[in-house]
Amino acid sequence: MRISFIGAGNLATRLGIALKTAGHEFVQVYSRTEASAQTLADLLGAEAVIRPEALHSDASLYICALKDDALPEVLKKVDVGNGILVHTAGSLSLEVLKSFAAKTGVFYPLQTFSKEREVDFSTIPVFVESSNKVVLYILKQLAVDLGSEVYEITSEQRLKLHLSAVFACNFVNYLYTISSDLLAEQNLPFEVLKSMIRETAAKVQNRSPDQVQTGPAVRFDRKVMEKHSALLVKHPAWKALYKELSQGIHQRSKSSQQ
Amino acid sequence: MRISFIGAGNLATRLGIALKTAGHEFVQVYSRTEASAQTLADLLGAEAVIRPEALHSDASLYICALKDDALPEVLKKVDVGNGILVHTAGSLSLEVLKSFAAKTGVFYPLQTFSKEREVDFSTIPVFVESSNKVVLYILKQLAVDLGSEVYEITSEQRLKLHLSAVFACNFVNYLYTISSDLLAEQNLPFEVLKSMIRETAAKVQNRSPDQVQTGPAVRFDRKVMEKHSALLVKHPAWKALYKELSQGIHQRSKSSQQ
Repeated sequence: MRISFIGAGNLATRLGIALKTAGHEFVQVYSRTEASAQTLADLLGAEAVIRPEALHSDASLYICALKDDALPEVLKKVDVGNGILVHTAGSLSLEVLKSFAAKTGVFYPLQTFSKEREVDFSTIPVFVESSNKVVLYILKQLAVDLGSEVYEITSEQRLKLHLSAVFACNFVNYLYTISSDLLAEQNLPFEVLKSMIRETAAKVQNRSPDQVQTGPAVRFDRKVMEKHSALLVKHPAWKALYKELSQGIHQRSKSSQQ
Repeated sequence: MRISFIGAGNLATRLGIALKTAGHEFVQVYSRTEASAQTLADLLGAEAVIRPEALHSDASLYICALKDDALPEVLKKVDVGNGILVHTAGSLSLEVLKSFAAKTGVFYPLQTFSKEREVDFSTIPVFVESSNKVVLYILKQLAVDLGSEVYEITSEQRLKLHLSAVFACNFVNYLYTISSDLLAEQNLPFEVLKSMIRETAAKVQNRSPDQVQTGPAVRFDRKVMEKHSALLVKHPAWKALYKELSQGIHQRSKSSQQ
């Protein structure tokens, strides 16, 4: 397909590279930041543009990967002609595209993307949505081109999927930052936790997270929890988190034993 | 060395197997649960005992891997003779062993252990402590036998290390359970998150967690956060967690930008 990108962030970069590798052709890349537009355009062999109005209307697919807030502002200035317009957002409905194109859809690859980190799309599930059967078929084919598992879901399902990803990825990473700070307070390198971090993620690949829960909270080892809590006296927000997460684990294990 | 195990849980099982593979000899395995004692004793070619008094005093090393609360109760019934007594707990001081043996130490491998899951000790850091130089040397050598990286740390450091592991492992796994439930509410399998869970753990192997934080909270995408929050109305505890974790991420990213 002849594709133009609207947005040149982490997701656009990784998805663009994967689609190019799969043989697709790129027309233009829009970003309001010239350096970002140019970098991705160079990678994809496309033209960089920094004004939405400069996007030609003859691409067959426009992939919009903007911050949710920026999307309407930009799209109202874009003429997609007869092309298909999709967004890649977890938390935006299909509906939001209605006033900007006749053929619309959603193409949501579920992964945490970084510009500089390669990802293997064959391990990434893609969630598609469209009210147009032809568009739906095309989006599914696009996912197949990437080697991805493809799921057709509604906007409502996608929003909750996105929320679950925030817990399993963004919040998990935040817990890593807390660990890292606690180690630094004892002059220990973050290095020492890496094996356990890998193992914690590896364990849930074959078993449910409920089955592999370990630690003082699931054993309800009150003495240990009290010692830990006392260590967090200088970090009231983390102390509160410690209490709530421990209670959550304990209550869950109690109710699963009943 | 001639080793006896006091305790036959997850850690004892994996550490025992690794030490046997490294060529060490096992004398006895104590657990108050006969089946546990027998299973591990069989794996290690040792004798199973279910009374602490039945442990012979001629082993050269006694590795105590009991729940923190159970430790004093059991150890006061054990005669370790001239042997070295170590515990494997993150949150117990070296001190707690003082009244049970002349030569004491701590041997703390940092990992989340399951009885049925093989682990590679060469990737696991081991934290040792002893006030006796000979004991310290022996414990370091034991870690080297396992191929582990070895660190000498104090009880105070170890307690905070353990706390950081609770955040990076036990609490992380609990967030996985929440994600899993949220997906189930939309009839989506936990499967779809697995690639992202692996990637989230993989990203912090080479970069600091602060550098790789993504998601609506770090972008401070208020609209998305409001939608997510609204989805959690039936789960007040998770809604509170969502708010606190998002605020934590946002504040951290603000202060690192200053």
